[in-house]
Amino acid sequence: MVLLPFDMMEYQQRLTKTKERMENLGVDVLLITDPANMNYLSGYDAWSFYVHQMLVIIIDEPQPLWIGRYQDANGARVTTWLYDENVIAYPDQYVQSDLHHPMDFIATILKQIGQGNRRIGVEMDHYYFTAKALERLKQGLPDAEFQDASLLVNYVRIIKSDQEIEYMKKAAKIADLAMTKGVESIYPGVRECDTAAEIYYQMVKGTPEFGGEYPAIVPLLPTGDRTSIPHLTWTDRPFVDGDAVIIELAGCYKRYHVPLARTVSVGQPNDQLQQVTPVVLEGIQAIFEKAKPGVTCGELEETWRRTIKAHGYEKEARLGYSVGLNYPPDWGEHTASIRRGDSTVLQTNMTFHLIPALWFNTDGIEISETFRVTDTGIERFTTYPQNLLIRDSLDLGGQIS
Amino acid sequence: MVLLPFDMMEYQQRLTKTKERMENLGVDVLLITDPANMNYLSGYDAWSFYVHQMLVIIIDEPQPLWIGRYQDANGARVTTWLYDENVIAYPDQYVQSDLHHPMDFIATILKQIGQGNRRIGVEMDHYYFTAKALERLKQGLPDAEFQDASLLVNYVRIIKSDQEIEYMKKAAKIADLAMTKGVESIYPGVRECDTAAEIYYQMVKGTPEFGGEYPAIVPLLPTGDRTSIPHLTWTDRPFVDGDAVIIELAGCYKRYHVPLARTVSVGQPNDQLQQVTPVVLEGIQAIFEKAKPGVTCGELEETWRRTIKAHGYEKEARLGYSVGLNYPPDWGEHTASIRRGDSTVLQTNMTFHLIPALWFNTDGIEISETFRVTDTGIERFTTYPQNLLIRDSLDLGGQIS
Repeated sequence: MVLLPFDMMEYQQRLTKTKERMENLGVDVLLITDPANMNYLSGYDAWSFYVHQMLVIIIDEPQPLWIGRYQDANGARVTTWLYDENVIAYPDQYVQSDLHHPMDFIATILKQIGQGNRRIGVEMDHYYFTAKALERLKQGLPDAEFQDASLLVNYVRIIKSDQEIEYMKKAAKIADLAMTKGVESIYPGVRECDTAAEIYYQMVKGTPEFGGEYPAIVPLLPTGDRTSIPHLTWTDRPFVDGDAVIIELAGCYKRYHVPLARTVSVGQPNDQLQQVTPVVLEGIQAIFEKAKPGVTCGELEETWRRTIKAHGYEKEARLGYSVGLNYPPDWGEHTASIRRGDSTVLQTNMTFHLIPALWFNTDGIEISETFRVTDTGIERFTTYPQNLLIRDSLDLGGQIS
Repeated sequence: MVLLPFDMMEYQQRLTKTKERMENLGVDVLLITDPANMNYLSGYDAWSFYVHQMLVIIIDEPQPLWIGRYQDANGARVTTWLYDENVIAYPDQYVQSDLHHPMDFIATILKQIGQGNRRIGVEMDHYYFTAKALERLKQGLPDAEFQDASLLVNYVRIIKSDQEIEYMKKAAKIADLAMTKGVESIYPGVRECDTAAEIYYQMVKGTPEFGGEYPAIVPLLPTGDRTSIPHLTWTDRPFVDGDAVIIELAGCYKRYHVPLARTVSVGQPNDQLQQVTPVVLEGIQAIFEKAKPGVTCGELEETWRRTIKAHGYEKEARLGYSVGLNYPPDWGEHTASIRRGDSTVLQTNMTFHLIPALWFNTDGIEISETFRVTDTGIERFTTYPQNLLIRDSLDLGGQIS
């Protein structure tokens, strides 16, 4: 029996909106290879995106087709709302082979069902749609016309339904618990991997009411000098007094993410961290006060820039991005970014991870919030205290500065 | 200070072998976008492969170039053996933007350094090298000649050095510990996510002597009916008496993986599991006796096929694959597979994950081993008992059948 995370009405609405966009783009057949987009439209959920697979949306057909590896086809039957006959499997000889490519198989299927001479949209710049995949599809479908449909479904995903927001609220509970567990585990002599283990444990276990899932990005835990380098993962080095530790994690529920970042000081924080923390908090507050439907992402960045500039700080990198449903390697949705010039107009139930990190030569600070745009402003998902956190090596009390 | 996992001699050997293959393929400039291959040649290690980045190997230059996002450039300086001037960063406006593509920046750099009219090899069918990436490179480098160099570096990786084997032995210790922790956590009423949390905790914490890392695939934990579907991840459903549970996990150390799968029965196993277990074990044993330098992967499959056929079983999917260094979404190396017709000849220090799973309509069994080819045969990495595991709901003793 299929237990879908959303009711059929919601899947139908998603499909309808997708087809409207296909129509506007002049695409008859959309090949969805992004695992998050596959899940969004069909419910498909498995760690099978390491082999070629796709969902085929045909503009004049009521149901998508799932095409993937033979041993994953049962997963498509169990996790999607598609009829069994719309699940099509390629044999194992196509898997990671020099001789046979899954896209040859898929091209043949598309021809057989009369789609070989249509306008075909592909997710040109999405993970898991390789240069070779396109080349083989083009060879196999010489009469088709190919068109870039990158982000087509992502832009449908940008506004969340109430049910999606509910899932994000559950993810937020997990994020709060995992951050608590992670911060409390930090004291001198504990290794970075020990703290990462505590965070993972809590992220996956979830709460007594609902379990957690794997996030699209592993917990990031740069420490000491490495706090200037945001995407390094943990090592087995023990924390020492004076270390700054950045924890960036996400709670995940039904593949919906709520990321959360905090900076922890082992013992008293250095001058730089002490000086910059209130600036970051003021900048976040300014963005929160500015944000509401009708304001653009670019205006949020402007607000931030003005606020921190008054204190003599500058930041070149983007401040945040649309967030929600995803699979590795990224929980960002690749649509709206909170950055200079982004013209996306905020609407109710857009959701963002605001992570206005500041990095210096040898250290950095990250304090982030995931928020939802409401009808009148914004609402934070998590409740974790918004501050620089101090783990005092004497009392280990985890007091908050 | 850069602390590399291998000495410079080893990196130089890898680079030399890569250049030999470039020469054979007629490639002057190799663009490496696969994170495992980037790590293998340079040491680069960060969760940054969700943005475009690459290592550029120029056949007549002693050092590769790293090109990536500005905020990741410090990571390249800290984790690689490259000189700082060989680390080139693109500004944040290129990140996930409709307006600017990182490959435009990279094409400009390649032209500036005189590589714009050479024969350029690209990893056409690797994760993270999108169709769009190739399109933009071709547009930006109209005088270059592009060639598919998929798996070029992977085939250098197929034979491990002694140091790599040492890292895999450490990964194996973590795999044994994580499997022990996972199996011991299973009893009726415990949720799948609780067991996944225990496994993750141990995988990441590692041992008191060395920490663990994130594996390229999350722990897979199909249960009950879902044991017929290998790539489903955990849910928050509680185990019930009579459930079969498949655990597939990997220990990971310095990004080297040793995967391990076992099947657990909650309470007494059903007839099918009882009947098929000795067949799988006999098949594994037959492969182990056959395997040694000079034998082909295809011959290993033949041995397996003959062995299980004598008991009336058949299996279409491949039995295993070369394994080692990797990043999400796959720990397999995409070179040799243990399957029908694979002509790869075993050599000392090749390493494989042998996972001759059998799936039936509503259940399945997985018992796997990761092994190294020695001069005279093979050597298992892990020591975990090779059997169907029974978790009795009465004594919870985790006795082994």
